[in-house]
Amino acid sequence: MAKDQKKQPRPKAETPKGFRDYFGADVTERKAMLDRIAEIYHRHGFDPLETSAVETVEALGKFLPDVDRPNAGVFAWQEEAVPGGGSGDWLALRYDLTAPLARVAAQFRNDLPSPYRRYAMGPVWRNEKPGPGRFRQFYQCDADTVGAASVAADAEICAMLADALEAVGIARGDYIVRINNRKVLNGVLEAAEVRTDQAEDVLRQIDKFDKVGRDGVLALLTTGRKDESGAFIEGVGLSAAQAAPLLAFLTSKGATNAETLENLGAAVGGAAIGAEGVEELAQISGMLAAMGVGEDRAVIDPSVVRGLGYYTGPVFEAELTFEILDEKGRKRQFGSVAGGGRYDGLVERFTGQKVPATGISIGVDRLLAALRAKGLAGAEEAGPVVVTVMDRERMADYQAMAAELRAAGIRAEVYLGNPKNFGNQLKYADRRGAPVAIIQGGDEAARGVVQLKDLVLGAKIAAQASHEEWKAQPAQTEVARADLVAEVRRILG
Amino acid sequence: MAKDQKKQPRPKAETPKGFRDYFGADVTERKAMLDRIAEIYHRHGFDPLETSAVETVEALGKFLPDVDRPNAGVFAWQEEAVPGGGSGDWLALRYDLTAPLARVAAQFRNDLPSPYRRYAMGPVWRNEKPGPGRFRQFYQCDADTVGAASVAADAEICAMLADALEAVGIARGDYIVRINNRKVLNGVLEAAEVRTDQAEDVLRQIDKFDKVGRDGVLALLTTGRKDESGAFIEGVGLSAAQAAPLLAFLTSKGATNAETLENLGAAVGGAAIGAEGVEELAQISGMLAAMGVGEDRAVIDPSVVRGLGYYTGPVFEAELTFEILDEKGRKRQFGSVAGGGRYDGLVERFTGQKVPATGISIGVDRLLAALRAKGLAGAEEAGPVVVTVMDRERMADYQAMAAELRAAGIRAEVYLGNPKNFGNQLKYADRRGAPVAIIQGGDEAARGVVQLKDLVLGAKIAAQASHEEWKAQPAQTEVARADLVAEVRRILG
Repeated sequence: MAKDQKKQPRPKAETPKGFRDYFGADVTERKAMLDRIAEIYHRHGFDPLETSAVETVEALGKFLPDVDRPNAGVFAWQEEAVPGGGSGDWLALRYDLTAPLARVAAQFRNDLPSPYRRYAMGPVWRNEKPGPGRFRQFYQCDADTVGAASVAADAEICAMLADALEAVGIARGDYIVRINNRKVLNGVLEAAEVRTDQAEDVLRQIDKFDKVGRDGVLALLTTGRKDESGAFIEGVGLSAAQAAPLLAFLTSKGATNAETLENLGAAVGGAAIGAEGVEELAQISGMLAAMGVGEDRAVIDPSVVRGLGYYTGPVFEAELTFEILDEKGRKRQFGSVAGGGRYDGLVERFTGQKVPATGISIGVDRLLAALRAKGLAGAEEAGPVVVTVMDRERMADYQAMAAELRAAGIRAEVYLGNPKNFGNQLKYADRRGAPVAIIQGGDEAARGVVQLKDLVLGAKIAAQASHEEWKAQPAQTEVARADLVAEVRRILG
Repeated sequence: MAKDQKKQPRPKAETPKGFRDYFGADVTERKAMLDRIAEIYHRHGFDPLETSAVETVEALGKFLPDVDRPNAGVFAWQEEAVPGGGSGDWLALRYDLTAPLARVAAQFRNDLPSPYRRYAMGPVWRNEKPGPGRFRQFYQCDADTVGAASVAADAEICAMLADALEAVGIARGDYIVRINNRKVLNGVLEAAEVRTDQAEDVLRQIDKFDKVGRDGVLALLTTGRKDESGAFIEGVGLSAAQAAPLLAFLTSKGATNAETLENLGAAVGGAAIGAEGVEELAQISGMLAAMGVGEDRAVIDPSVVRGLGYYTGPVFEAELTFEILDEKGRKRQFGSVAGGGRYDGLVERFTGQKVPATGISIGVDRLLAALRAKGLAGAEEAGPVVVTVMDRERMADYQAMAAELRAAGIRAEVYLGNPKNFGNQLKYADRRGAPVAIIQGGDEAARGVVQLKDLVLGAKIAAQASHEEWKAQPAQTEVARADLVAEVRRILG
């Protein structure tokens, strides 16, 4: 506005570090996947909830439950001071969908059905160092049941998760939902006479079971071991006898749930909390069977240790078991795409009352990557039919063609750039992935015809044919203007 | 963590001021509406784009194009300083979907097709004082064409908007897309010999045409007038002769586009820019006709003045013309649900190159409110079938019933609260809007039957029937367990 304003340097056209944009199929494929999941969740009686992206820092709390990112922070700012009303509130972007659920469950506790089943899908934000493939805004897709103490709620979540994976296209046999229970671990810790001040350390070590195996964990629980780099990792200091029930727990998976439960019963010894945990897993196993979910889809598996430190009861993890090639060309299992479990205290922060809750969170980007790896998404979508412009005075004629095609349900557009260079128009049609280009010059208009260029066939010919064949252009045909829609439909097949 | 931690006061379970949550049908109805709009946009060759919610303040710029909210601010915060790298960037939540489009069009100018048609749907954030019905996070739904100088792009947007309104359920005749052109106004300003320093003031006064009418605007353009409160509003100081072309412009709408265009031609006099604007409108009129969009759907209307100050060429506004009752019970037209037009300079900020662009933004909340006013959304959705729990030891049996129903495509859930009080279970089913409750005690289980309670019929009977009739409970029937799915389906109709 100021007349003596200095010339400003131009702003940089860049997303902030760690943020990205999603174009075209990136948006529609994720949406299609989430729509299918939402349908399954809805059919299970779950209602959608969309909370605001912004919460008070006070309501969010300062802890992040995601064990993978313990130091993740939030994007926060302070509201302007209210005149005469002291300093403004601190607000922040939500870092997950669970903390807002806890706030909602407390705020609307008199209005919501109890138990309250809800699903939520949307972006969350983490103020952390971005890395390759690690963004500061990403999607989560959660389903939780608040106010149900029964493990029936946990069993339902596991069955629903299996259904959701199949609904998006993951075949039975290509995934497994694994179920463990923190209470069983607690029983084992008791049986092993692990001191309270050692428990956290023990949890950290058994979490390495996947990587270092049985003997590695035994060493870490007792006298320590050298890691790959040669550095010595100190042990927790348990005796071999103390470590035994812990290792029995981790390796108690049998050929059937019944066998696993028997092994777990032995591992927890006489600990009451452990027996309770085993009984819960037995109930879940029975309920899954009743719901028609076989052990090939959801199974009791005590080697699932991720999340055991955070959750208070049953813990779930969905793994995709098919193999993909990693960036170095080696085969490996695709791995985890969802995790969850039973937790307490989230609503209690607000109300002082313990409210039992259980839920699952699907890693949206990972599941979408899995679908692409299986060829279930990521196929090049056919672009629109492109009506080219030979005569800019007859733009309305070209628009009429596109409108007719659209009225017949065919995606179509008119070239809207400068029509002078016809080559540019065909390049544009190519860039758009157009299956057909429509061409009508004054001569064709006078004769009541249009040219249809089959770009899919044309590309094939260009790739395979000789120059003579290419010049013969069998991919271009002249049809009556009145037959435009029918002929385009015929080419589209 | 600290052992001597003081007891913290409990956090308040509240959304921040000006923010809200969306529950159940609020989410699904908006989604269904946006899905239908997206389908229309897609068919017109528009591709989805989802930019990050967060932008650099530098990229966003400091101006808000929405003339309704000129002082609206953004939610912004500063990134932590990079060690040894100076102070951190200022980041902010996007305040609309156009500024991020400009950034994307500049950042990816070598990768995107040109012209680039894109649509975007999602929340935007405004740091302003919240008021009744005015929130600091709300949805926008935009479609824009970047890089097309031809008014064919404008005509296409108007036709697409009309199609989108019909796709969500607004009947032909219940809406009208009105089209005006800033260039015509510029011609009129020239014809009226309005000085450059008066132009802004003139725009402000003619924007009141809706409210104060022809004579009111005449007074405001010349010597001033008293408003309703009796306060005197100073006039711009034009002569009556100068005001004449402006009033001719505002009132030049005829019975047909042809008539309107003739009137406009007269209003602009000899001004070249005005003639160019009238010619553009004539072209748009012809293109709309070619696309099969009649003047009952989209019409040239010079009384559309909103946005003329911001846009540089054609301006569009979609109005719903059916009547609703306002909060005081008076009939009034529903009014505007979308607006847009042609603009320049947004991409130029980044690249120094002018890139023509045109687009439309639908007011998502207003359009959804319109659908509700017309009974096209907001109907109470039937809840899930609720399987009650008579015997908590047989939870797996109840879960099997729900699973069978779901496998048949019926939304169903088991009651997961404490089953002790059966009355609470029926209250829950009622709260859930359940059409049917399923009941099976030990006796029924032994006999291989279940009780089906038709809650829709039951509610009708409770409302209309005598106590005796009510006690007869015709809404409850006993059916064979094997017939559960078939009988529930029969009741659901």
